Amino acid sequence: MNPVKVGICGLGTVGGGTFNVLQRNAQEIARRAGREIEVAQIAARSINPLCQTGSTLITDDVFEVVNNPDIDIVVELIGGYTLARDLVLKAIENGKHVVTANKALIAVHGNEIFTKAEEKGVIVAFEASVAGGIPVIKTIREGLSGNRINWVAGIINGTGNFILTEMREKGRAFADVLKEAQALGYAEADPTFDIEGIDAAHKLTILASIAFGIPLQFEKAYTEGITKLTSEDVLYADALGYRIKHLGVAKRTPQGIELRVHPTLIPAERLLANVNGVMNAVMVNGDAVGSTLYYGAGAGMEATASAVVADIVDVVRVMTSDPENRVPHLAFQPSSLSDVAVLPIDQCETAYYLRIQAEDSPGVLAQVATILSEREINIESIMQKELEHMDGKIPMILLTHKVSEAKMNDAITALEALEGVEGKVVRIRVEQLN
Amino acid sequence: MNPVKVGICGLGTVGGGTFNVLQRNAQEIARRAGREIEVAQIAARSINPLCQTGSTLITDDVFEVVNNPDIDIVVELIGGYTLARDLVLKAIENGKHVVTANKALIAVHGNEIFTKAEEKGVIVAFEASVAGGIPVIKTIREGLSGNRINWVAGIINGTGNFILTEMREKGRAFADVLKEAQALGYAEADPTFDIEGIDAAHKLTILASIAFGIPLQFEKAYTEGITKLTSEDVLYADALGYRIKHLGVAKRTPQGIELRVHPTLIPAERLLANVNGVMNAVMVNGDAVGSTLYYGAGAGMEATASAVVADIVDVVRVMTSDPENRVPHLAFQPSSLSDVAVLPIDQCETAYYLRIQAEDSPGVLAQVATILSEREINIESIMQKELEHMDGKIPMILLTHKVSEAKMNDAITALEALEGVEGKVVRIRVEQLN
Repeated sequence: MNPVKVGICGLGTVGGGTFNVLQRNAQEIARRAGREIEVAQIAARSINPLCQTGSTLITDDVFEVVNNPDIDIVVELIGGYTLARDLVLKAIENGKHVVTANKALIAVHGNEIFTKAEEKGVIVAFEASVAGGIPVIKTIREGLSGNRINWVAGIINGTGNFILTEMREKGRAFADVLKEAQALGYAEADPTFDIEGIDAAHKLTILASIAFGIPLQFEKAYTEGITKLTSEDVLYADALGYRIKHLGVAKRTPQGIELRVHPTLIPAERLLANVNGVMNAVMVNGDAVGSTLYYGAGAGMEATASAVVADIVDVVRVMTSDPENRVPHLAFQPSSLSDVAVLPIDQCETAYYLRIQAEDSPGVLAQVATILSEREINIESIMQKELEHMDGKIPMILLTHKVSEAKMNDAITALEALEGVEGKVVRIRVEQLN
Repeated sequence: MNPVKVGICGLGTVGGGTFNVLQRNAQEIARRAGREIEVAQIAARSINPLCQTGSTLITDDVFEVVNNPDIDIVVELIGGYTLARDLVLKAIENGKHVVTANKALIAVHGNEIFTKAEEKGVIVAFEASVAGGIPVIKTIREGLSGNRINWVAGIINGTGNFILTEMREKGRAFADVLKEAQALGYAEADPTFDIEGIDAAHKLTILASIAFGIPLQFEKAYTEGITKLTSEDVLYADALGYRIKHLGVAKRTPQGIELRVHPTLIPAERLLANVNGVMNAVMVNGDAVGSTLYYGAGAGMEATASAVVADIVDVVRVMTSDPENRVPHLAFQPSSLSDVAVLPIDQCETAYYLRIQAEDSPGVLAQVATILSEREINIESIMQKELEHMDGKIPMILLTHKVSEAKMNDAITALEALEGVEGKVVRIRVEQLN
């Protein structure tokens, strides 16, 4: 059989990795796919010095690749929303299959893209868009297809996890570690997407969609970053037997879907709590399988390329098949996506860690307890760190049982109004992840 | 479209779980698969009281299911080698697709079964045969298809892991925990397959085959159980910063494939070292993706059923496709399996933990060091537990660098011949799993 012809758009980190993996493992990959895979054209503004492109056809115009009649599969690795969207839509229009690592594109424009792809009978594969080399999209869409998924929770931003790991292990401050992450190349010059949770929210949006069979709804994701975390709270969490991780959580509840990214206390003995540095991991809980976890490198040249190449092999296998029998883009048949609501954060329920800077008097504790009890918020434990007396104020740390965000907001307003309480109450959500 | 018709052979733990998951999640599964899946017939010696089989056709003859012209997919969940083999071969002969959870059958008769299946153009799916609900076969065959796999290492027997966890956490003796495991239903009345590593070797044989593209070679797997482990060694390993796990390890080396099941010291900080109780986890290291880990319930009624049902959905998706484009049974095209040798254990290389019951005199240490040095075995660390003097003998614990099993056997023979050394030298292999 003729080789399948692939056009790679973008030869940066992931594009370069994809090219190199396809070259180096060509034989191994052909032994699996049953066909050779040939990079027929590359669009790049400049040649990646890590790639030996040899006689491969190179252009600086991505649309040349998309319009090249020889090419079967367009691999979009240029990133961003605008040009990438035009490129992918044009590829679909031209009847080409698409592989992309672009989470922003899928989270924001995925519904439109998949609709067009289904009309044209082509595949848009996007395994590399979430958790780099970990095949978590395949796992949810195919490996757990017998389950009703209850929840998904993951460390899906390596930069954020690197920062939290350093803060905990070395007691360093957020800003200090961020600078190092930028110097190491883990964080961008503008780190907003990573540290404010936007990148994680893109990925969580995709995971929620394939887990629950709902359209992509990035605009409804609640997103809270890690910029306000102090090493103080990281250490208190430790003392309570928890670790703070920046989690994306998507959970099915009788009222609707919770879709939220925020710093989270999780029990220290969970495997997920022990995922450190730039590594990623995703837990998936299904009604039949129970809790499972998938761990690996969430970014990097070849780790992400691993997922891109796996998608190319998948496309090669099914490109000649009847589109009706393919794995649906969002795991569920397009005609049977569910319109179950994504809940606003006010209606989400979690347990909470609260740190209250309070006067060291029994009266304050009684007032705090009263405020919580009036709102039916049960206290699981209280820790007062007498060692750290400052101006007669000590931090009072509480763990609560589960309660709605709305009730907790109301309680915090009341707590902050107490005379014996100074400044803002620190609030971090808690998940048990059983 | 008409529903796909499934016949379930065996309604024990996994069969009952499969029936129940297919019933309970029928709607969710049809939304994913695009077709309804109907259990058209069940073969069972008795009805599982946990299943509401209602009007489903029941027989006590498995061949009735296999010969039923209405049935598209035969689900083999009777276990064992003999009847199961006949059943599966007959199903293939009748042109039916097969889903099985039977690791012994696949590890021992898989080559024959897959050859027949390819001749008839049918699929034999076996995700549930390894690590229960964790979709690790799909992950290696499809999710990591761009990689040259370097090694696979896993905790793939829940009973063994439960026993080791209890020995470590509670300082209990092997025999004592085994009795409890039997009482809890985690271990069979005859626990040989679990505690001697045979079950793990079946699973490892399958993983190695799909990782490296080699035929199934169960008879070449080296298998060592956990029956001789003492809680003493479990505690010493802890003191050295390691945990003892019963691992299946398949590794590509320039000389051939290592295929071995044995107790193994692994660094305590690895996620795999923290997989406890009856849980399973498999690490897979690929040249592009690096190290990844997959964790979940390795057994149990519905966890295993989760994998069986996922296989059924996969078969439904590809049953109408051209057999040439399907994922090959052993991940690589049958015509391009590799004849690379599986190495005998003598030629395998690992680091070692040695416990030598020795006289407490500097002379003995010098003799031990000489014996190792003469065989070019480097010592990484030595620990002598003076606290535990018994009859003037103290345990001397060594960690060595990597060396071939043959050299280590030779060294141990020499060590045991020393006058100052009492009894047998305890030897446990060590893997770093970076």
